[in-house]
Amino acid sequence: MTTAQPLSTDPFLPGPRVRVAGSATGPLAGLAFAVKDLIDVADTPTGGGNPDWPRVYPTPTRHAGVVQTLLDAGASIVGKTVTDEVSLGILGENAHDGTPLNPAAPDRVPGGSSSGSASAVAAGACDFALGTDTGGSVRVPASYCGLYGIRPTHGRIDFAGICVQAPSSDTCGWFARDAATFARVGEVLFGQAVPDHLPRTLLVAADALGFADAAVQEALAPQIDRLAALVGNRRDVTLAPQGLSVWQRAQRVLQSSEAWQTFEPWLDACNPRLAFSVARSLIQGSMMTDAERSAASLMRIEARARLARLLPPGTILCLPTTPFPAPLRGLPLDALHPLRERIACLTSHGGLTGVPQVNLPGARVDGAPVGLSILGARGTDLDLIRLAVALEG
Amino acid sequence: MTTAQPLSTDPFLPGPRVRVAGSATGPLAGLAFAVKDLIDVADTPTGGGNPDWPRVYPTPTRHAGVVQTLLDAGASIVGKTVTDEVSLGILGENAHDGTPLNPAAPDRVPGGSSSGSASAVAAGACDFALGTDTGGSVRVPASYCGLYGIRPTHGRIDFAGICVQAPSSDTCGWFARDAATFARVGEVLFGQAVPDHLPRTLLVAADALGFADAAVQEALAPQIDRLAALVGNRRDVTLAPQGLSVWQRAQRVLQSSEAWQTFEPWLDACNPRLAFSVARSLIQGSMMTDAERSAASLMRIEARARLARLLPPGTILCLPTTPFPAPLRGLPLDALHPLRERIACLTSHGGLTGVPQVNLPGARVDGAPVGLSILGARGTDLDLIRLAVALEG
Repeated sequence: MTTAQPLSTDPFLPGPRVRVAGSATGPLAGLAFAVKDLIDVADTPTGGGNPDWPRVYPTPTRHAGVVQTLLDAGASIVGKTVTDEVSLGILGENAHDGTPLNPAAPDRVPGGSSSGSASAVAAGACDFALGTDTGGSVRVPASYCGLYGIRPTHGRIDFAGICVQAPSSDTCGWFARDAATFARVGEVLFGQAVPDHLPRTLLVAADALGFADAAVQEALAPQIDRLAALVGNRRDVTLAPQGLSVWQRAQRVLQSSEAWQTFEPWLDACNPRLAFSVARSLIQGSMMTDAERSAASLMRIEARARLARLLPPGTILCLPTTPFPAPLRGLPLDALHPLRERIACLTSHGGLTGVPQVNLPGARVDGAPVGLSILGARGTDLDLIRLAVALEG
Repeated sequence: MTTAQPLSTDPFLPGPRVRVAGSATGPLAGLAFAVKDLIDVADTPTGGGNPDWPRVYPTPTRHAGVVQTLLDAGASIVGKTVTDEVSLGILGENAHDGTPLNPAAPDRVPGGSSSGSASAVAAGACDFALGTDTGGSVRVPASYCGLYGIRPTHGRIDFAGICVQAPSSDTCGWFARDAATFARVGEVLFGQAVPDHLPRTLLVAADALGFADAAVQEALAPQIDRLAALVGNRRDVTLAPQGLSVWQRAQRVLQSSEAWQTFEPWLDACNPRLAFSVARSLIQGSMMTDAERSAASLMRIEARARLARLLPPGTILCLPTTPFPAPLRGLPLDALHPLRERIACLTSHGGLTGVPQVNLPGARVDGAPVGLSILGARGTDLDLIRLAVALEG
């Protein structure tokens, strides 16, 4: 008799843990890291969070570029982690593999799609972990699990050997519990030292702050004050003059259209088993019209121009990473859908414009973490990391 | 590591076989039957062909009405059989449970959604088996596996204790290898003896025959001739003056809208794992407009009037059950979709009008079975069975 299995809360995939020792020496020697199961580790099937994904994705013979760089720098792999199905999800509930524990708020979801990586770092099972972020998949679990997490400048970290979702938005980032480890990984992956100087101007995205729950605005206020004190100048601005929801709609059109292009051959060939919500999101991508895509592409140009204008050298912007802390585990779909849409209103600028963003932990609402984000112009990833170190120190 | 499992070809559910002994005496004493896993057997979870269905469908404490009637008549249950997911499928490929073997054509699908019931009867694992037919789920596997199969008059067989899909079209039918067994079950379930008389007029649905592959038309011709010889008069008619494809579209609008109503609470509450094709079909149901439903309801009235006019007492109509024999197993979705649509053009009259239909085995194309169907006015189920017995005898 077919019956539903009780689902796991383990951040790691079931079965024996994948372990690969890094170089004996190097700037990351002695650090242990985990790898989201969308990222290739040689001679290990890349599961993609779906039981039918390995049917089209052959077992890789090489490490993903980013994994190889970390191993060469001395870090060792201690496991592959659960992901939302083929990266399509923002809450971290996987109908096949379960929902990894959120160690910072055990009755709540961990956030996704890099759910297992955030969960493993928050639980102390590794020093840092790799994730991917297309529409928020590093930033949201970092906010929900109380971690440092980065969505790097689009195109700056090698995406070779990582499962694609929407190429014009896909990035590879990482999580850490402390700013020092977070920065060490950044120096290796960007191949540059963290700079000495701090930004000189802090913009507060008033529209984004006002979009978050009042409790989140209140919880983040002291952190924003400390940031402003470090940076010097502070100014309130509007991030999205056209509307955060207009940017969110544009990103949804572009991202879901690209995701449909990516996954349609797999769907046709394998008729894979998918959670209903994931199938629905794919089908919504198939229904976007040329007119919608064209309008969304123009809005992307406007959004990029807006960020370029707001963020001259030495200026960074802060906003709440998520409008509320992690929702409870196991909510029904009709309750989750409006929550997902609201979250996307605070994350869509990333995929739309490609600028880097770092989540800073520390604040809590009702005992659950909620993150403050800083973002800068393209290429300022290490400046953001520098500020994270300064704020913690 | 998550990997795809090799899928089963067993017609029965995995695990220990459910067995329930029937009464020691009765008209069906000594017969063994199998039960599609949408139909309740007391104290056994009803799996519905989906691993997440039992989460909302509590283990039944009573047998479905039709099961109780058969047990009381002396037949014994020898197993529950694989079904397409929550009855949504016409080919018999279940992404979770596998594709039951088509014993009559092992490289081809068995047809569905009553796939396991047809497979078990064709393999000789039982004497007869229960299925359900909303849009063709008994008729199609009967055609593909070379069996007698009936879609009874809508509403005539008790549907209590059976998973609903689209109530205005749902029926419960059965399969058998020989006409005598097929008729014995009918006498018990309809509570009447098979009549002595034969119909006096045979209508041949020229539009439906012309819609089938040329090889099917050729293969069915001798059987139609034998039917005509038994009945006496023969006349060519048009079944659907508005078009078979117009009836098909109307039935799809009505059936899929009702299916959405049926399953939406489950989808919202459980976010179940579904094959992509099944999720897509549900979502298409959610997108039907009031204008489409209104037009389809009017077309249903026209179709019912057409059948009432064509089928006065003593008249039956014949048509190919399916436009071609069973497709090969494992075809990709983009190849299957047009095949499903063509099949539905020859089955939609059933759900639309509620008349009874019997599949007669015997013909083959390229070595694979393909069935001839006879249908009559509402309530003439036993007249159709009588003709099946006469044709075999």
